[in-house]
Amino acid sequence: MLGNGNAVPDAGAALKRLLARDRLAFAMEAHNPLAARIVGNAGFDVVWASGFSISTALGKRDRNEVSSTQLIDVLQGMREVTDTPILVDADTGFGDFNNFRLLVRRLSVMGVGGACIEDKTFPKLNSFVNGRQVLIDAEEFCGKIRAAKDSQLSNDFCIVARTEALVVGAGMHEALERAERYRLAGADAILIHSKEKTADQVLEFALHWAGRTPLIAVPTTYSETPCELFEASGFGLVIWANHMIRASVAAMSEVCNQVSSQRSVQGISNKIVAMEEVFDLFDYAEVTAAERRYCPNGAAGA
Amino acid sequence: MLGNGNAVPDAGAALKRLLARDRLAFAMEAHNPLAARIVGNAGFDVVWASGFSISTALGKRDRNEVSSTQLIDVLQGMREVTDTPILVDADTGFGDFNNFRLLVRRLSVMGVGGACIEDKTFPKLNSFVNGRQVLIDAEEFCGKIRAAKDSQLSNDFCIVARTEALVVGAGMHEALERAERYRLAGADAILIHSKEKTADQVLEFALHWAGRTPLIAVPTTYSETPCELFEASGFGLVIWANHMIRASVAAMSEVCNQVSSQRSVQGISNKIVAMEEVFDLFDYAEVTAAERRYCPNGAAGA
Amino acid sequence: MLGNGNAVPDAGAALKRLLARDRLAFAMEAHNPLAARIVGNAGFDVVWASGFSISTALGKRDRNEVSSTQLIDVLQGMREVTDTPILVDADTGFGDFNNFRLLVRRLSVMGVGGACIEDKTFPKLNSFVNGRQVLIDAEEFCGKIRAAKDSQLSNDFCIVARTEALVVGAGMHEALERAERYRLAGADAILIHSKEKTADQVLEFALHWAGRTPLIAVPTTYSETPCELFEASGFGLVIWANHMIRASVAAMSEVCNQVSSQRSVQGISNKIVAMEEVFDLFDYAEVTAAERRYCPNGAAGA
Amino acid sequence: MLGNGNAVPDAGAALKRLLARDRLAFAMEAHNPLAARIVGNAGFDVVWASGFSISTALGKRDRNEVSSTQLIDVLQGMREVTDTPILVDADTGFGDFNNFRLLVRRLSVMGVGGACIEDKTFPKLNSFVNGRQVLIDAEEFCGKIRAAKDSQLSNDFCIVARTEALVVGAGMHEALERAERYRLAGADAILIHSKEKTADQVLEFALHWAGRTPLIAVPTTYSETPCELFEASGFGLVIWANHMIRASVAAMSEVCNQVSSQRSVQGISNKIVAMEEVFDLFDYAEVTAAERRYCPNGAAGA
Repeated sequence: MLGNGNAVPDAGAALKRLLARDRLAFAMEAHNPLAARIVGNAGFDVVWASGFSISTALGKRDRNEVSSTQLIDVLQGMREVTDTPILVDADTGFGDFNNFRLLVRRLSVMGVGGACIEDKTFPKLNSFVNGRQVLIDAEEFCGKIRAAKDSQLSNDFCIVARTEALVVGAGMHEALERAERYRLAGADAILIHSKEKTADQVLEFALHWAGRTPLIAVPTTYSETPCELFEASGFGLVIWANHMIRASVAAMSEVCNQVSSQRSVQGISNKIVAMEEVFDLFDYAEVTAAERRYCPNGAAGA
Repeated sequence: MLGNGNAVPDAGAALKRLLARDRLAFAMEAHNPLAARIVGNAGFDVVWASGFSISTALGKRDRNEVSSTQLIDVLQGMREVTDTPILVDADTGFGDFNNFRLLVRRLSVMGVGGACIEDKTFPKLNSFVNGRQVLIDAEEFCGKIRAAKDSQLSNDFCIVARTEALVVGAGMHEALERAERYRLAGADAILIHSKEKTADQVLEFALHWAGRTPLIAVPTTYSETPCELFEASGFGLVIWANHMIRASVAAMSEVCNQVSSQRSVQGISNKIVAMEEVFDLFDYAEVTAAERRYCPNGAAGA
Repeated sequence: MLGNGNAVPDAGAALKRLLARDRLAFAMEAHNPLAARIVGNAGFDVVWASGFSISTALGKRDRNEVSSTQLIDVLQGMREVTDTPILVDADTGFGDFNNFRLLVRRLSVMGVGGACIEDKTFPKLNSFVNGRQVLIDAEEFCGKIRAAKDSQLSNDFCIVARTEALVVGAGMHEALERAERYRLAGADAILIHSKEKTADQVLEFALHWAGRTPLIAVPTTYSETPCELFEASGFGLVIWANHMIRASVAAMSEVCNQVSSQRSVQGISNKIVAMEEVFDLFDYAEVTAAERRYCPNGAAGA
Repeated sequence: MLGNGNAVPDAGAALKRLLARDRLAFAMEAHNPLAARIVGNAGFDVVWASGFSISTALGKRDRNEVSSTQLIDVLQGMREVTDTPILVDADTGFGDFNNFRLLVRRLSVMGVGGACIEDKTFPKLNSFVNGRQVLIDAEEFCGKIRAAKDSQLSNDFCIVARTEALVVGAGMHEALERAERYRLAGADAILIHSKEKTADQVLEFALHWAGRTPLIAVPTTYSETPCELFEASGFGLVIWANHMIRASVAAMSEVCNQVSSQRSVQGISNKIVAMEEVFDLFDYAEVTAAERRYCPNGAAGA
């Protein structure tokens, strides 16, 4: 069996420790178990199970076209191939407080470290798409957080509250006020999102926030910002939220177009790994060894 | 809604036409709906829903660690994002004749074009891995083919019989004899597999076969063979069986390792697509237009 | 293979014919494939795939605790064991117009006859439970209907609009006005729901409605009403919406309690069917015959 | 939220204690979460997640027509509505040692108490159906047991080895020899199956077995045997293996046929529970109370 996937470690506690320490931690997006394994192997602190990316891999749009059941299936597969703590992008919680607490109850016994919920209405639309971007009533959102904290079955499961106040243009004051209410409702960390070209907004937020809870940044549009700036401003975690799926799309498109046009796979060997590399990634040698151990005479019938 | 995913076309008939024509057709592997969409967009004739690749994406080994339910879920997603005919790698049929005919019945009403079944025992191990590679009794395999043909609910659904006789070293005579029995049992096409470094074996097979049914080649180890050779030898379809997952693993590993070591995403922009490219791939503009059409005043509540 | 589950018949057209004829048709609830098979065998015109019952069987509450994926899985199983047209209780559509049209697109190629959507907000609560019962904005609901009609992939797929106006106490005028708007938006039939102890309300509704579309009644609280009254008032379909699950709970509870208290199954034989009856229900003889046909020498290995 | 479904208790340890004590324990079959909740509420010691019954509920035959994924989905639902230890009927393990250990790894972190595996070939056929009933090679079966014990992630997870030696007519000596080999391979308990009309066979087995491990009986064909006899002979657990589904089929068929023939639900009220009884079974009052706690002002939007 694969070396990891061992008895459920306390992923929530590990996640909390990462968020609390002085040094910045890094999360990389994964959209399926394969990506999660690569992310874990590369030494990232956290696997970010991105709603956008998981939707994309499943051929759906980041507008709650994927059900909570589909999300859970992906997470279960991830959990079995990596021990790196997984932080789940739970969008807006798949409905109201009741849908979200049911999901949190389930995630918290699956060995997932935490769930991030954002303060938009269900169904939500990806923050970078022009279209309907509506904040949910803050009181109702606080109810979701409280319901989740009351329902989690693992003490250290993390609830991350993500505010989209800056994304929808509601301003810094609204963002800070909401974050404070979410903190009081029980949020273990705040994710402050922005789609500005620079990190100025989120750094200003951090300055005002003054470390009341750990802070998380998602530098998608301001990816060139040196991470030292986030660290110095009190952020605990930076999430590279979509880079694996974007790398995958780029590579698959390029290979696909080249092979299609030249009617041959010649000249692509430097763009693909050898079969053996995949076999090694999932330890095929272990199953052959296990055959010798558990089935020495071969199978008379499965 | 996405432009494709329209009413189920007769994918089986399309697949049969491709196999029957003089010109060589090409299939590219896909392991999830995203990959299927890219393959379809690139103009390939067929999407090869590869067992190896789907297993890998799901974090499992190509040894029937993935259930038929998981496979069907992936195929359903693929079907909804591409109208390119899908040929499913059904491994050894997930059990005996009964398991396989249940699967075929289901696939044949989902709009999938055909299923390929190979003549090894269940559970099977990837043909390129050293380990237990055992041929199934030919009579039993013919029973699987007959059961499938009797059960398919779409007239033109294709059953492709894949013989591993050359892979396990049983020789050309065995390969040809088995293929002939499979043809008589109702197979619509023969996939002749080999793990030699050159195409000599499969070309020799084709010579003897003399066009009794359409032939399919999978040039994984002899990928440098000019496709004209396959075409001239009477092959109807060449499958690039694992190149999308291998491209994806290569790209994700590279980006992951670079970002992890440099604690930054600087310098990877040429290795990833822009967010907009993903939005375009799944036509996010359509959903915004649909909001205007179906929900002009905004939602009072979902 | 089971005798039914044959090539997808046009269940939608069959459903429309039933709704349009003079004689009253009857639907019985089913909550899993087993129940659907019993309902089909008993000669009912329609299988009602009830949200309340399916939730209950899955151990969840009728408050959208079950995801659309779980619903689809249940429906797929039902579809494979009965050719009786299935009308799906789609609650409020699992989100907004986009979630509902995605579901309808899927259902309409699965061989399901139609989907019923109700005009409450998501997540909805069972109509017979005291709690939050909120009508959705009528315009938004019409958008859901239009989106569904534009997205169905089978011409005759039925969209049934269910108004809860009477249930929430909004009055007859509101019920009629909404029904008319839903009709203009494209609804193929109207389900007029009520939780009164008598049928007076829905009969009055029918009188005013005057046959503009087929009408559907759900006599849960007024189950003693002679069906001739519904027929005479122009209803096309009566749904017994929860009687199979209620029979099942009654029988299981009784047997369970008796066996538990007496530490024996003595004296329950008249409350349970013989094993053979279950074997016959799913035609086990067919699989044994198929073994002889497809696997005459026995399996050397699956 | 429902009162149970709390943090995963050590179901395996509880199951082991039940098997080890002097007093006979009782398991009742459940085929879906609803049945599991009723069984738990009735005070049974163990929920038996029966392969036959789960297949039947899903409209499939007890011949491995249901995938491991479908089984796991049912178990997950059961686990969330009862804290009574669940013993899973894992048939022949869904393939070889590798398929079985993957399943056991998953079950052992889900809070399931144990899994029973039987010594027939995959796919298996229900023991009470005349047809192909083939014992697996004993050495291969021991490999499955060893693989499972090495893979379980919860120390006390129980592996129950079920021998079908008596069912296939291989005789008492074979049954005892196999059971001993299974014990040495690590089985935590032995299930000795028989389809005789009396308990004589299994009581004789128990006499020879002499308490080497806990023993389990499944009195389907000899259900009239007083349980004191099992207790006195050293059995630790009696499984009523199919009585809930048989009660359910009986009740649903009767109600269905009556309602269909009389075109009315009159006269069935004593055969069905009230809606309120279902609401109480799943504590709908809790969700209404939760609405007041978590969403006091009503939802502006989900």
